Amino acid sequence: MEVELTVYLSGEIHTQWREQIADGVDEFDLPVDLTGPVEDHSASDDCGTTILGHEDNPFWKDHKGAKLNAIRNRTLMGEADLVVIRFGEDYRQWNAAFDAGYAAALGTPYVVMHAKEHTHALKEVDAAALAVCETPEQVVAILRYVTRGELMRPSPSLSLVR
Amino acid sequence: MEVELTVYLSGEIHTQWREQIADGVDEFDLPVDLTGPVEDHSASDDCGTTILGHEDNPFWKDHKGAKLNAIRNRTLMGEADLVVIRFGEDYRQWNAAFDAGYAAALGTPYVVMHAKEHTHALKEVDAAALAVCETPEQVVAILRYVTRGELMRPSPSLSLVR
Amino acid sequence: MEVELTVYLSGEIHTQWREQIADGVDEFDLPVDLTGPVEDHSASDDCGTTILGHEDNPFWKDHKGAKLNAIRNRTLMGEADLVVIRFGEDYRQWNAAFDAGYAAALGTPYVVMHAKEHTHALKEVDAAALAVCETPEQVVAILRYVTRGELMRPSPSLSLVR
Amino acid sequence: MEVELTVYLSGEIHTQWREQIADGVDEFDLPVDLTGPVEDHSASDDCGTTILGHEDNPFWKDHKGAKLNAIRNRTLMGEADLVVIRFGEDYRQWNAAFDAGYAAALGTPYVVMHAKEHTHALKEVDAAALAVCETPEQVVAILRYVTRGELMRPSPSLSLVR
Amino acid sequence: MEVELTVYLSGEIHTQWREQIADGVDEFDLPVDLTGPVEDHSASDDCGTTILGHEDNPFWKDHKGAKLNAIRNRTLMGEADLVVIRFGEDYRQWNAAFDAGYAAALGTPYVVMHAKEHTHALKEVDAAALAVCETPEQVVAILRYVTRGELMRPSPSLSLVR
Amino acid sequence: MEVELTVYLSGEIHTQWREQIADGVDEFDLPVDLTGPVEDHSASDDCGTTILGHEDNPFWKDHKGAKLNAIRNRTLMGEADLVVIRFGEDYRQWNAAFDAGYAAALGTPYVVMHAKEHTHALKEVDAAALAVCETPEQVVAILRYVTRGELMRPSPSLSLVR
Amino acid sequence: MEVELTVYLSGEIHTQWREQIADGVDEFDLPVDLTGPVEDHSASDDCGTTILGHEDNPFWKDHKGAKLNAIRNRTLMGEADLVVIRFGEDYRQWNAAFDAGYAAALGTPYVVMHAKEHTHALKEVDAAALAVCETPEQVVAILRYVTRGELMRPSPSLSLVR
Amino acid sequence: MEVELTVYLSGEIHTQWREQIADGVDEFDLPVDLTGPVEDHSASDDCGTTILGHEDNPFWKDHKGAKLNAIRNRTLMGEADLVVIRFGEDYRQWNAAFDAGYAAALGTPYVVMHAKEHTHALKEVDAAALAVCETPEQVVAILRYVTRGELMRPSPSLSLVR
Repeated sequence: MEVELTVYLSGEIHTQWREQIADGVDEFDLPVDLTGPVEDHSASDDCGTTILGHEDNPFWKDHKGAKLNAIRNRTLMGEADLVVIRFGEDYRQWNAAFDAGYAAALGTPYVVMHAKEHTHALKEVDAAALAVCETPEQVVAILRYVTRGELMRPSPSLSLVR
Repeated sequence: MEVELTVYLSGEIHTQWREQIADGVDEFDLPVDLTGPVEDHSASDDCGTTILGHEDNPFWKDHKGAKLNAIRNRTLMGEADLVVIRFGEDYRQWNAAFDAGYAAALGTPYVVMHAKEHTHALKEVDAAALAVCETPEQVVAILRYVTRGELMRPSPSLSLVR
Repeated sequence: MEVELTVYLSGEIHTQWREQIADGVDEFDLPVDLTGPVEDHSASDDCGTTILGHEDNPFWKDHKGAKLNAIRNRTLMGEADLVVIRFGEDYRQWNAAFDAGYAAALGTPYVVMHAKEHTHALKEVDAAALAVCETPEQVVAILRYVTRGELMRPSPSLSLVR
Repeated sequence: MEVELTVYLSGEIHTQWREQIADGVDEFDLPVDLTGPVEDHSASDDCGTTILGHEDNPFWKDHKGAKLNAIRNRTLMGEADLVVIRFGEDYRQWNAAFDAGYAAALGTPYVVMHAKEHTHALKEVDAAALAVCETPEQVVAILRYVTRGELMRPSPSLSLVR
Repeated sequence: MEVELTVYLSGEIHTQWREQIADGVDEFDLPVDLTGPVEDHSASDDCGTTILGHEDNPFWKDHKGAKLNAIRNRTLMGEADLVVIRFGEDYRQWNAAFDAGYAAALGTPYVVMHAKEHTHALKEVDAAALAVCETPEQVVAILRYVTRGELMRPSPSLSLVR
Repeated sequence: MEVELTVYLSGEIHTQWREQIADGVDEFDLPVDLTGPVEDHSASDDCGTTILGHEDNPFWKDHKGAKLNAIRNRTLMGEADLVVIRFGEDYRQWNAAFDAGYAAALGTPYVVMHAKEHTHALKEVDAAALAVCETPEQVVAILRYVTRGELMRPSPSLSLVR
Repeated sequence: MEVELTVYLSGEIHTQWREQIADGVDEFDLPVDLTGPVEDHSASDDCGTTILGHEDNPFWKDHKGAKLNAIRNRTLMGEADLVVIRFGEDYRQWNAAFDAGYAAALGTPYVVMHAKEHTHALKEVDAAALAVCETPEQVVAILRYVTRGELMRPSPSLSLVR
Repeated sequence: MEVELTVYLSGEIHTQWREQIADGVDEFDLPVDLTGPVEDHSASDDCGTTILGHEDNPFWKDHKGAKLNAIRNRTLMGEADLVVIRFGEDYRQWNAAFDAGYAAALGTPYVVMHAKEHTHALKEVDAAALAVCETPEQVVAILRYVTRGELMRPSPSLSLVR
């Protein structure tokens, strides 16, 4: 028996990790619906002032934009069976940690993906996760196992997401 | 990836704002289901006594009617991913503010649409909203951005809903 | 816009009131799914001991049966948008009042149907209802109004359910 | 270690069962707070119209009164660790069954007290209870055991509450 | 047995209705804790910019202030056993209706106090209330009945709150 | 009217009881979706280290594996209308009892299936169940009755699951 | 700043582990309230039939008793900030695993205490715990750290609970 | 009327901001209980392995420690009326953002304190906050206003927390 999963992909938007997971889902034809935030960075930053009107103060520009994005993201988080949260190398990505806390309080299972060097800084985020991994291939292996019970060993040589 | 939204349109029933939003949803073929209260004003006022029996006291007539309408409206509020709440010019529309408080307590995101002159009087309602705007075209722009990530600039000259 | 409703019909099982409501739903082709308990009285009484084994003590026979019926009824109550609860003339029907309290605590809207003579005894049950009526035709009128906004006046001469 | 309990005594108000339980709680000095509805029958019936204004229609008189009583009773039900529900001999007491359903949906444990002859009619109410008994002395024994772990055998000859 | 109540007094802040209720609570020595919003109108309006910094745009001034007030008011609403909501004569008081909807969604009982002339406009707010009245003396009578079961008839000649 | 049920089959994975229930569901063409954990024992044990990396300490191997399985199992438990929990003869199966407690706290109805000899040791688990039985045929009879109201008597000579 | 904790001690009742934890709490004067089930084994087994009446069938004797104990235990579980669950050597203790699942679904943190040999069998129970340990001294160290931030190293030579 | 608040101080532990807030609370004798995580950095890092046993792998050391700290922190977050979250200059402090998301999902109001330079990176965290400020003096002003309605203007020259 297959399990259908709706999976929200949260966090870093500067690398191709979402596409790599989507490719894996396609390759194995997994019963998984992938969702996520708007990935067009400038649209995501500008949406508030473009639609709701100009702001001189950057704080209010960000405020309006973050709230419009929240309409989408809270809806999708609420519908997700599983959240996958990626912490990248180059930014602080507090929004990713925010999503982890949000999922934890909702009782929604989540998986964290980050490089080993952030283990200590992310210990609270990792401690509430149901899995901690480093590569999209591992996420695909998790999705395959969880939905079908099929076990595969991710390539140890797979380069990390950069 | 598109996000499907169910959107409850609450509040003022004397202008065409719901139709304007529906037209925008059609124009861009957005994956949005619009719901709302019964808009036939006299049916909405008379439903209680027509179905459940005459009342001499207007209070009980209103009471019966408001409760029948609540069967519909609470169900739709409970199913909505987003509530859009319109405050018009000419009435007190306490029911619209009631719906805002109801949505806030449920944790359902809502957007408020009202003229600038009501900013101070609506500050508590606006403070709990995820967006505050003035025109149906802005609501359509929000729905388009939230569901598809497509950003458009609403016409600044668009006349307000009257 | 139509509203789809799932409606659980609770209470008295000795008259044809469920069929009368179902006929009305069919006549107006309302977008309503009707659900309800097992109506085969002897199956409902005997299910526990037939499936799970004989009991000498009638208390445990009833206990086993009531719990099996609860598997069905709690599931359906949990899925209902609206509960309609019928109190008949001839029995105490504590289970109907139990369902009213259960719906009230869940926040699920309910409608009560009973003869006027029980008004005082049912005052707590009625006070938490969104409508109180006497005939299946009134329930059909409620369902039609709530789902479609179409208002009709139930026949005042309609004989009560007996 | 003692367990402190807040216990709401719901249902029949024409016999002395609440006093009998209170006497037992006093006798054994149990760490139990007993709460319950207003027991002055005429005040309970008249409160709505006395405070909020006259009604010609008995339905609305009862409606106003039942809602005022609900302010008290829902608050106390919400605070209770345990609800004890008494079904008497002479009335339909749908409000008692309503409270049972309400407690069940809240997940609040409840105990039912009724004569054996009502076993079949109360099977749904009993099935969701954590204990079913016949006498106030049994309720006292339950409270003593639950709070202190002290086990006593209620008198088999204790006359039922009449 | 007395019932202790925590009662949040929401709404209009231009008349002395809160003091009148407090006087009644004192007079009868009722076991009632009264809470409410900050009643210093200018402090309530200015708190956001005074503490968090100046805003040129009145919208953001109101926004900051309304959110600071929300820290207090949501906490008190969450702790209240009962909310009393006053609609005055001279303002739209959407915040009062917002609080009514908020209480309704939380399942917290509320009482509405307003003049008869607003019956139709407030029908949705009234329909979800457990009592609708006109004078502080009626509120005191409700609190006395609910906490002590003592019934008193408010003076019919009591002037309305102005 | 048929009731559709999603049923999670929890517990023992060394006998064919899930297949026996599935066969019964097929035989009567019941509107039942059966779900359950991954039944491949070695995959279930090894999934954590295979996907997420080797562990020297068996505790962490088990920890990683149990958490990956929890992604699947919590999702399915959350979606289930009914949980059927099987305790076998040969293992302690604390995970089955864990699932029972989990279902109880969620308010999800569950049925327990175990041999009579474990009655005393399983009394807390049984006490919160809506049915306790011994054979898959009884589970099928429950599912048939709950979904269709059709009552059948399971064979008394049916050998127990071994 | 000290943190006050209410801690429910669940599980095995044949060894002195609760006393050992209580002694540690006393020794360090920790701001901890310890609660737990009735530990008088025969009272716990017999309470149902002693208070509620004899049963011939051991299943119903256990059923009545387990439900009376549930009145106490669910109340205490609901009030606990932390649950400590002890699995002993000699019994199956499914009730301990039931409590773990119950706490997990409530979102109440729990700590498991068991010998290393049960690591594999308890992996699902351990995976949802916030700590897994072997001795009462470790539990005391956890309580001291959590309430006061004082860190101490439990004796490695402390004999296990037997 | 004063409002009592329990306030959890989350985030950065390398500067004296908690003491500065505590001093302000003392100065004005505010009815505020301040709580927070264990601030002894090395105890916080080592608690898991010290109490529960050595780990070779730093990941598991962090894992055990973060979970022990979570026992304290989740309890305090659950009891807080308000959370104040400080983001410092020098670390990524994903745990602070995690707490913000956790509070947001629980519906607990929170205030964020950070330097202006992090406005863009913290926009999602700020957007769900009820106030965003830079200095402990502002937090004290918020606590004073919320609890007493007394408005004071924080010193604009107050140096930021470093």
